[in-house]
Amino acid sequence: MTNPTIALIEQRVSANAFDTCHALSDAEVETLVRLATRAPTAYNLQNWRFIAVRDAAAKDALRALAFDQAKVSNAAVTFIVCGVLPDSEHIPERLRLFVEAGYMRAEMSSTWQEGARAKYADPQAARDEAVRSASLGAATLMYAAGALGLASGPMNGFDADAVATGFGLASDELPVMLVAVGRPAPGNWPQKPRRSLSEVLQIL
Amino acid sequence: MTNPTIALIEQRVSANAFDTCHALSDAEVETLVRLATRAPTAYNLQNWRFIAVRDAAAKDALRALAFDQAKVSNAAVTFIVCGVLPDSEHIPERLRLFVEAGYMRAEMSSTWQEGARAKYADPQAARDEAVRSASLGAATLMYAAGALGLASGPMNGFDADAVATGFGLASDELPVMLVAVGRPAPGNWPQKPRRSLSEVLQIL
Repeated sequence: MTNPTIALIEQRVSANAFDTCHALSDAEVETLVRLATRAPTAYNLQNWRFIAVRDAAAKDALRALAFDQAKVSNAAVTFIVCGVLPDSEHIPERLRLFVEAGYMRAEMSSTWQEGARAKYADPQAARDEAVRSASLGAATLMYAAGALGLASGPMNGFDADAVATGFGLASDELPVMLVAVGRPAPGNWPQKPRRSLSEVLQIL
Repeated sequence: MTNPTIALIEQRVSANAFDTCHALSDAEVETLVRLATRAPTAYNLQNWRFIAVRDAAAKDALRALAFDQAKVSNAAVTFIVCGVLPDSEHIPERLRLFVEAGYMRAEMSSTWQEGARAKYADPQAARDEAVRSASLGAATLMYAAGALGLASGPMNGFDADAVATGFGLASDELPVMLVAVGRPAPGNWPQKPRRSLSEVLQIL
């Protein structure tokens, strides 16, 4: 019998067709984001924010900023997955419970903070981190949705500046991906063909 | 009973301690990367490359470029997950089998190529896409490893320029993350505490 997670990875498709009658409750949205935020982030920064766009008018507004892609409004919820430019000042608080529980010495938390301060002094490194964290969270959101029997449709075809303005993102937040989540409707494509392993893998 | 994928997401830890006696065969490495590359990418570009660093000398060389983090050489394999700056010229080939199978019209493949050409004319958008694709692949690699009973340790603490030079990356390739994969040893931390949902989720 195939492992269920492997089956999920192998069978995942980027859905375009969603059941427009299906809705997600607050509790279901919260479960999805609680799982998404189990993804790893550098220094445990958790430099992300998830905006669950569920209201019909809000979905229409988002769709208009995403090349009118129907899945934005047809899915039960479309998440705006934001990466946040990392701020090393947040590290002590993000590690506080871990230090208090005795897993990590307080000096290590300080060392991490110093490391992060140096690393993110480079604006490109900070932006890369925002994109990386949000992408790790978005991937986890997709597999969580799949585990709950839901389809997901990741998108990066949208006007990032307009989404940032229209949805009130802070100046340190980047909209990295949209992920439509809901019950699939008939008519979705199968998974697209993959490149051969010889093109993408080198073993040293 | 908890869904196995949800359990995997909830229980995943970023491992630091690995069993140094454990090795991964070519077939196991190939399975991991075959699964990782099921992750989605924009326009199906699959703009990534995975370097599986398994040889002891190669692991030592990588460890020296990664702040001497022991897990780089203690794990069976440490993957250098590279993102590739997207090139819209690749799109027809990446979609060819899908068009030939009748799922997508050839004109749509051309439209995607034009869209990608315009989008990635902006170097920052191209870099973001390389980071995003590699991160989605790295996340999928971690869940695939988990499904196979292996631990994973994601890292971005390394000298990217030195890794690019030392491991012969092409000029359009960025080392986005390292992911150590192997059998865990005793002494790993539990999952670090997560921010409360109220800080990271907004429902509209």
